Amino acid sequence: MEAVIWKRPCVLALRSCGPFATCGSRGTFGFRNGGRALHRTFILRVINSTGSGAVVARPSSARKYKRREGVDRKLAALRQLFHKPGLQMDAYIIPSQDPHQSEFIAECFMRRAFISGFTGSAGTAVVTKDKASLWTDGRYFLQAENQLGPDWTLMRAGTPGVPTVSEWLTDVLSPGSKVGIDPFLFSSDAAEELKHTLSTKDHKLIYVYDGNLVDEIWKEDRPKPPAAPVRVHDIKYAGLDVSSKISSLRQNLVEAGATSIVISMLDEIAWLLNLRGNDVAHSPVAYAYLIVELDSTTLFIDPSKITPEVIVHLRNSNVTVKPYEGLLLEVERLANCGAKLWLDTSCTNVAIVDAFHSACNKYFENLPKRSKQKSIKERNKLLNAKSIDSEMEGPLAIHKASPVAIAKAIKNGAELDGMRQAHLRDAAALAEFWTWLETKVVQDKTTFTEVEVADKLLEFRSKQAGFLDTSFDTISGSGANGAIIHYQAEPDTCDIVDDKKLYLLDSGGQYVDGTTDVTRTVHLGEPSSREKECFTRVLQGHIALDQAIFPENTPGFVLDVLARSSLWKIGLDYRHGTGHGVGASLNVHEGPQGISYRYENMTGLQGGMIVSNEPGYYEDRSFGIRIENLVIVQDMETPNRFGGNSYLGFEKLTFVPIQSKLLDLSLMSPAEIEWLNNYHSEVWEKVSPLIQGDVHEWLWKNTRPVPVNSTA
Amino acid sequence: MEAVIWKRPCVLALRSCGPFATCGSRGTFGFRNGGRALHRTFILRVINSTGSGAVVARPSSARKYKRREGVDRKLAALRQLFHKPGLQMDAYIIPSQDPHQSEFIAECFMRRAFISGFTGSAGTAVVTKDKASLWTDGRYFLQAENQLGPDWTLMRAGTPGVPTVSEWLTDVLSPGSKVGIDPFLFSSDAAEELKHTLSTKDHKLIYVYDGNLVDEIWKEDRPKPPAAPVRVHDIKYAGLDVSSKISSLRQNLVEAGATSIVISMLDEIAWLLNLRGNDVAHSPVAYAYLIVELDSTTLFIDPSKITPEVIVHLRNSNVTVKPYEGLLLEVERLANCGAKLWLDTSCTNVAIVDAFHSACNKYFENLPKRSKQKSIKERNKLLNAKSIDSEMEGPLAIHKASPVAIAKAIKNGAELDGMRQAHLRDAAALAEFWTWLETKVVQDKTTFTEVEVADKLLEFRSKQAGFLDTSFDTISGSGANGAIIHYQAEPDTCDIVDDKKLYLLDSGGQYVDGTTDVTRTVHLGEPSSREKECFTRVLQGHIALDQAIFPENTPGFVLDVLARSSLWKIGLDYRHGTGHGVGASLNVHEGPQGISYRYENMTGLQGGMIVSNEPGYYEDRSFGIRIENLVIVQDMETPNRFGGNSYLGFEKLTFVPIQSKLLDLSLMSPAEIEWLNNYHSEVWEKVSPLIQGDVHEWLWKNTRPVPVNSTA
Repeated sequence: MEAVIWKRPCVLALRSCGPFATCGSRGTFGFRNGGRALHRTFILRVINSTGSGAVVARPSSARKYKRREGVDRKLAALRQLFHKPGLQMDAYIIPSQDPHQSEFIAECFMRRAFISGFTGSAGTAVVTKDKASLWTDGRYFLQAENQLGPDWTLMRAGTPGVPTVSEWLTDVLSPGSKVGIDPFLFSSDAAEELKHTLSTKDHKLIYVYDGNLVDEIWKEDRPKPPAAPVRVHDIKYAGLDVSSKISSLRQNLVEAGATSIVISMLDEIAWLLNLRGNDVAHSPVAYAYLIVELDSTTLFIDPSKITPEVIVHLRNSNVTVKPYEGLLLEVERLANCGAKLWLDTSCTNVAIVDAFHSACNKYFENLPKRSKQKSIKERNKLLNAKSIDSEMEGPLAIHKASPVAIAKAIKNGAELDGMRQAHLRDAAALAEFWTWLETKVVQDKTTFTEVEVADKLLEFRSKQAGFLDTSFDTISGSGANGAIIHYQAEPDTCDIVDDKKLYLLDSGGQYVDGTTDVTRTVHLGEPSSREKECFTRVLQGHIALDQAIFPENTPGFVLDVLARSSLWKIGLDYRHGTGHGVGASLNVHEGPQGISYRYENMTGLQGGMIVSNEPGYYEDRSFGIRIENLVIVQDMETPNRFGGNSYLGFEKLTFVPIQSKLLDLSLMSPAEIEWLNNYHSEVWEKVSPLIQGDVHEWLWKNTRPVPVNSTA
Repeated sequence: MEAVIWKRPCVLALRSCGPFATCGSRGTFGFRNGGRALHRTFILRVINSTGSGAVVARPSSARKYKRREGVDRKLAALRQLFHKPGLQMDAYIIPSQDPHQSEFIAECFMRRAFISGFTGSAGTAVVTKDKASLWTDGRYFLQAENQLGPDWTLMRAGTPGVPTVSEWLTDVLSPGSKVGIDPFLFSSDAAEELKHTLSTKDHKLIYVYDGNLVDEIWKEDRPKPPAAPVRVHDIKYAGLDVSSKISSLRQNLVEAGATSIVISMLDEIAWLLNLRGNDVAHSPVAYAYLIVELDSTTLFIDPSKITPEVIVHLRNSNVTVKPYEGLLLEVERLANCGAKLWLDTSCTNVAIVDAFHSACNKYFENLPKRSKQKSIKERNKLLNAKSIDSEMEGPLAIHKASPVAIAKAIKNGAELDGMRQAHLRDAAALAEFWTWLETKVVQDKTTFTEVEVADKLLEFRSKQAGFLDTSFDTISGSGANGAIIHYQAEPDTCDIVDDKKLYLLDSGGQYVDGTTDVTRTVHLGEPSSREKECFTRVLQGHIALDQAIFPENTPGFVLDVLARSSLWKIGLDYRHGTGHGVGASLNVHEGPQGISYRYENMTGLQGGMIVSNEPGYYEDRSFGIRIENLVIVQDMETPNRFGGNSYLGFEKLTFVPIQSKLLDLSLMSPAEIEWLNNYHSEVWEKVSPLIQGDVHEWLWKNTRPVPVNSTA
């Protein structure tokens, strides 16, 4: 899936980045305005636009958008709530987030879409007493124009002169105004940044704890929170039992001087507990929080999701279950017990962080005076400190990136094997699919809509053993639609797939043993020389990155240029990152690693990480090209190890033919052609045993070597 | 010259970096210690080790180090000064800096070498009442061990467990101690950082204004400050007259809401006033400060350096001359007049910045009470603000990177032409030199010392029209010495250059019209296959970078990987940056641009900038390889301009053959061989008209095409 967006996306307007922030998560629009450099950071998120909380994969044709109606009444109702007893607000911000900063969210959390009518994946709605504005980025300007009612103003984020949410609020409100947010929907970092900007004009940020105001309008129409059962992720795929994972985490806590940690990212909880959920389409996670202390582990989750099998599994790992809503009380209890609590403020919502901080303050206020003064001084000194004296009296918040993110990113042998196996079955399904499509379109002269093609692909994938779901909404873009990076075909309006245009297909599957994500671009007729030149240069970038060898811990952004330089040679480029992390039978986007031009993400690549390699090129109103494989970062056993470093490279996971017809071989070096021929030979070797008949024949034809050109 | 070090090097322990800091300037040692990431920043500077204030270039053989003697007496004398009336200090820091954060400094400023005996280019001495420690980096551990007396402790910066200067001081002093510095030798940023770290243990940083304490011991032995005359840099080389440059600068001031600026970097003053000096070996600059106001320009310089020609030149541009020592008074006058003063705190010494801040405070203290309160509130809000309301009452310090640095970095047509011309004459001198060396060593079986070879090179360069000086101390490294990145051959101890080993020669010249910097590595006998493989991979990196095309404003670090990836393929690397900026008939190292793994330097490359392209490989105790050309960043007229961007590439300035004998052609692609053959054909075309006889013949032989290998 195209790497524009990333995990942990909730930052409204953060300009700088501490050593532990997962910076790759933010979409930053940098541009020059009036001679001064401005950096605008805006929420860039992909919501599952189906809004489905369903547990089985649904064909795209089943997707439909709710039409907006009565938007004005919604706004009026919301504004009435500004004056609820004890509130007195001047504005309310409705972000796209769920309480866990998830990339895909359950339908009940799609409050921004409900209130504004805009269903795009990225956007923030802000309602004041007399204004209603919606921010989104360039991918959604047209859609937002169509969907927003007359009372709404579209704020084109990233366009020169357009303020950020907080800049706008600071400006339009009269000084000393009150801005409300649902504290469960903002990460602590985002809320702090917002509070800071608002304070420059003496505005106050108000945390509205007493229920989300949009929910009060949504009422019984609001979808129920998902309640699908949780299942155990088999140890043969997980590779490491829960006790071992928690034991490593406790080691991290001890090293940091912490006595407990709140885990709020849903994929981190799923990974740590070897559980998989069904609360969110595409992401096999369940809504939950986890607190790990040095001697206990508590999972906060709707108990109705816990099957007897899961009860046994959790009991074996000494994990206690409490209701989802019980978290804040437990956090307060931790403060009262003097816990040193590790909080990742980049992804933990400010309701949790504030609950702990407030309870800490109460703790110290209740101390005898002399002892209190000393403790507060000590505490202030050490808050955010890197080295904690665990003998220090009283509770303490340790703000640091969750250690689970990196532990999860570095896959173990079983996880890697599962990923390899899932990718082979996925490759077989794709071989069947491409054979079907080529036969129908080229031989039978049939055409299909983009949605029909995507549905057929799902049909082939569904037949594979262990298939559970697509790993994201399939991007099925024919011709000009391929140039829309986040294109979502709709049954009523979508284009046809035929032999006249390039066709870009970006899709993936969730399997019991792994997660796949692959993009191929094909032409079923005669590609133009322009299309061939661009395709060849995209492939050259893909090859250059695939062949890279680099010292361990090289930040991913260092490699990004390798995927672009062949395009840059003729003045072309693409406006998305080159690679994102991928979970093992988990979320298709995961951090903290990435390969991108977001140079602030200093996460070093390490053996066992999985990333996508997906350069592209998009010609507006014409065609789109992307070639995406997933790869494992692996040790390369180089003949030298300068500086005592390991040198790393990539092992390919994806084995799907790349259409040779689209290549301009005269542009390719012998080494590049050798790469392609070797890749195809490996595809044949690995995938041919899994297929038969005409699919076998199709794969044979599509994996034959191309001639080496000796003059390039 | 190898790109390990950079301009504006004075930062003691800066961990993060504001948008205007010239981050490329710092040598940062990052390493992991006890599981926690530590970042150590240490002064990495090259002093001219001859310490010469002489105005003509001297052969290296004339260089000699002063032997240490009476070190103990010096320390004792310094410690006595801790108790001078009104001082009462517990420690004194002696850095390598001059008051202008220059890379090369005049001998009278080499106080750290005088007090410690250690003459290496990088180091900081710290003397407490009972300890004396010297910090230097890995290049100088051996030299420092030899030169430091028994009372000194060597602090091996960058080695795990070794504290930074401020960490060490914080630790060894009893809480509440006083640490003295000469405020003219620390940039404001460095002093602030130091002050902050010391304050964590309640230590105080004291600015000793009343003369440098080392000078009080040095007494009459201290070299006199340089007093060489300043000359006018001809407009035919400068390209732009002083009035135009100052007018642009005033435009910058107005845009930033400033009314005046202090320029303290010597090369910025030289560039802005089209003057060149002779105060420092290798750098054609003069010690001076400059204040530009909206309606006046004042140069602070020893008047004895100003010739009648310069007087006329300055008068024509309405530049007033005042004595060097008059600066602080003028800065105070600016505050009293309510100036909005632009100060680049990354390179302006804290004596200046503090003088202005103190005078500002006085200004507001003397205001009538009511008016005072308002002004201070306004002022606090806007101090460091990006947008200044110039109507605001009272003086203001605007902390921002000097706009002269980037204006100077983007060369105009005349500067580029001068650089091109100087490089051709330099190439002719090098052709003569290499012909001489090859004839002597290969045919006549003569050997020379490394110093003799460097002296002979100077002889050839000196014959070229417009030659003034070497642009840095020649690095003449035979065999294992080539692996010492900052190697300085000494007459008594240096190795011989013969036909048995690789020979690395990094050198450059200052000419009236340009500055050169070129490295070639050759073998005058039979290179080993290891040497050939490494040389070939270094050249492949050089070629990849040279051929890069990239969007305008791409930060230089993005391209760094291109120069390394061929080495990485076999697990090799080099521990220095790949490219530094170069002045036009000015300093051989200039910022803010660079190509390096220092990822924090976000300066974008722009057309007209000059950078070096110098990958290398160094095998300890065996050999060193570096291949360096200078290149101009230029617009590339690509067939597409995606995103409306210009795409940039490089024009070569350096035309010196690369030894084909050292190549393993089987490793090279046809495109790489084509690059080499094209380069050599261009070398022949451009340089052959400037040479004759056997040199002509040598150049012919050394620019013949090598056969294209069709299998790589």
